[in-house]
Amino acid sequence: MAMVYVTRRMHFNAAHRLHSDALTEDENAQTYGACNNPMGHGHNYELEITVKGTPDPVTGMVIDLKDLKDLVQHVIIDKIDHKHLNYDVDFMRGIVPTAENIVVALWQQLRDKIPAGELYELKLFETPRNIAYYRGE
Amino acid sequence: MAMVYVTRRMHFNAAHRLHSDALTEDENAQTYGACNNPMGHGHNYELEITVKGTPDPVTGMVIDLKDLKDLVQHVIIDKIDHKHLNYDVDFMRGIVPTAENIVVALWQQLRDKIPAGELYELKLFETPRNIAYYRGE
Amino acid sequence: MAMVYVTRRMHFNAAHRLHSDALTEDENAQTYGACNNPMGHGHNYELEITVKGTPDPVTGMVIDLKDLKDLVQHVIIDKIDHKHLNYDVDFMRGIVPTAENIVVALWQQLRDKIPAGELYELKLFETPRNIAYYRGE
Amino acid sequence: MAMVYVTRRMHFNAAHRLHSDALTEDENAQTYGACNNPMGHGHNYELEITVKGTPDPVTGMVIDLKDLKDLVQHVIIDKIDHKHLNYDVDFMRGIVPTAENIVVALWQQLRDKIPAGELYELKLFETPRNIAYYRGE
Amino acid sequence: MAMVYVTRRMHFNAAHRLHSDALTEDENAQTYGACNNPMGHGHNYELEITVKGTPDPVTGMVIDLKDLKDLVQHVIIDKIDHKHLNYDVDFMRGIVPTAENIVVALWQQLRDKIPAGELYELKLFETPRNIAYYRGE
Amino acid sequence: MAMVYVTRRMHFNAAHRLHSDALTEDENAQTYGACNNPMGHGHNYELEITVKGTPDPVTGMVIDLKDLKDLVQHVIIDKIDHKHLNYDVDFMRGIVPTAENIVVALWQQLRDKIPAGELYELKLFETPRNIAYYRGE
Repeated sequence: MAMVYVTRRMHFNAAHRLHSDALTEDENAQTYGACNNPMGHGHNYELEITVKGTPDPVTGMVIDLKDLKDLVQHVIIDKIDHKHLNYDVDFMRGIVPTAENIVVALWQQLRDKIPAGELYELKLFETPRNIAYYRGE
Repeated sequence: MAMVYVTRRMHFNAAHRLHSDALTEDENAQTYGACNNPMGHGHNYELEITVKGTPDPVTGMVIDLKDLKDLVQHVIIDKIDHKHLNYDVDFMRGIVPTAENIVVALWQQLRDKIPAGELYELKLFETPRNIAYYRGE
Repeated sequence: MAMVYVTRRMHFNAAHRLHSDALTEDENAQTYGACNNPMGHGHNYELEITVKGTPDPVTGMVIDLKDLKDLVQHVIIDKIDHKHLNYDVDFMRGIVPTAENIVVALWQQLRDKIPAGELYELKLFETPRNIAYYRGE
Repeated sequence: MAMVYVTRRMHFNAAHRLHSDALTEDENAQTYGACNNPMGHGHNYELEITVKGTPDPVTGMVIDLKDLKDLVQHVIIDKIDHKHLNYDVDFMRGIVPTAENIVVALWQQLRDKIPAGELYELKLFETPRNIAYYRGE
Repeated sequence: MAMVYVTRRMHFNAAHRLHSDALTEDENAQTYGACNNPMGHGHNYELEITVKGTPDPVTGMVIDLKDLKDLVQHVIIDKIDHKHLNYDVDFMRGIVPTAENIVVALWQQLRDKIPAGELYELKLFETPRNIAYYRGE
Repeated sequence: MAMVYVTRRMHFNAAHRLHSDALTEDENAQTYGACNNPMGHGHNYELEITVKGTPDPVTGMVIDLKDLKDLVQHVIIDKIDHKHLNYDVDFMRGIVPTAENIVVALWQQLRDKIPAGELYELKLFETPRNIAYYRGE
């Protein structure tokens, strides 16, 4: 029984502002620099969802990647694509939208809904050079 | 005398909202769809600046790409990176920030400041799949 | 009135076999090499559609890229994605599916259906290293 | 003694059809959707081969990546490039060519032939957005 | 008779040093900065060769891209790959190896040897962000 | 307390020559092939630095990626960018500059200087197809 990891890569565009209510204005400016700009800025985020499991002996699939795509579209992408992460997303309220916090929040939305196999890793590309990933540890 | 085209690719992150003051709320929503979201969304923009000219016989360069990079950083990137294009950028005021309008506005900022050769093309990648370019025609 | 070029990049997966009915088996094998394999092989094709025009003064768009995407999806992608180009596509019948022939055939399907601006270029990536483009010349 | 992982990325183009002999025609169509198209479709596959080991103290290499490239070319790529995975490949007979099944089958071809170090991971990109990897677990 | 442009993308790795014998040491240092480092530095160059022509009515090809690949491999790549452009390449002697000068020198090596169609453009990526192209103008 | 991995991707251009003082000229030529060219060749290296840790409850960051970028720029990139790895870099003296040896040497420069979290992995792309990574094992 082989353990195989399958990954679907998806994308969304969103605005965000790095700003913590637990910090003063000066501390926010110093901590987040240009990312603290009051009107926000934005990114073309890429999200890689990896599910691990043993391929079904009949279908040869760990999970139908089309089903995984549709699930993530419904549970995550539809709620954050073309949105402002500080204001428009219920499950992000009160959370500073760093890549680290976003990827953990997305994990919590998704982990119990995977119909086959097990969620192994979420990897979020804020830009091609700034990346965060989470494995539920 | 060879005519050579040199390109520098740069990037910036910005938020924007597609919304025209010449349209009603309903028309805006219908015209721009998700891009009309009131709080805006954002992108990792990539900008390719192409200058044409004949290489200097001594240096072998049309234009020093380091100088071009510094110029574009100063004239454009510093003013739009980590900003909201609808609110934070002087030369974008009153302009709907579509890729088409942005690339023409950037051309106007840059065309008279190229110290060697001639600005040939600006190419703006809003995403890797949505692109606009302008050649001053 | 600025002339701006806007590009939408789309993709499709298809099988093909390079084989000409005007050549003998030996000539086909010699001409096309591994691409003449009887059962065919396949590619992740990428297609860049570029439309030129002047941005609408109200909307700031040459053409709504969402509309262009939907049009190309309907007119082209739905007919060739996950298909065998030698057998499954009406407008490719009798045409050797080289990148050159495909891109000209796609141009003929698309050129009269662009609702705003004018079709300027179709660029087909058979692989990231093998590319053909056509401008209606 | 440092444990270092070295990766060589290679590519091949192939056609495939997702179809299981253990399923009825209707079940196949429902399970695999467009991927069940009778004439097949195809991909530009990318394959990453990762070998782990300690660099040789004299040469500084875990394995000569040129040797690894030649080995994988001979053992895998020559047998599947420009082929139809359902019909043309001996070691794929009777196997539904999902990314999961392909990557496990390639592992079995390769694992005992690595001349230095140990095969750690095979990662198969069916498209840039659909990926499967296997670590021999 | 359609005019189609076909492109083959190839790569080579080389070292170079930007240094002009017509400049003093100080002028060289000031002109080229870090690129003037005496021991040189290097790049993974990418080269796109574009040939324009009408597809052959029988084969559907402007030029066999496999033939173009072999030609460029023989005429250009074998002479510059894994070489130092200042010292190891006959046709680069006495030429400051800027991207501009390299692309013009490569054009001169290649333009008269294209067996079908006509050389239209050479595009040289020194890095993904520094690019020069030449069309024989 | 979530364990999150954050990655910053950086780049540098350098020349190198694969040559071991422990081998004869013939052995060097046979071992390293074209990479043994006396004048060296070069690459656009990409380096991914991954730090693991728990996001700070106030800032939401494992480590400020801007700080990580500045640190790596200072400790590594400034010393190897636009340099010849065989001659210009103190901490590479006497080390054959294979990707394996470089990535271990860079780890040793960096591991004790990470101000928050813990260095988890360094991944070095010599080319997009030749990669080495190290996790301190």
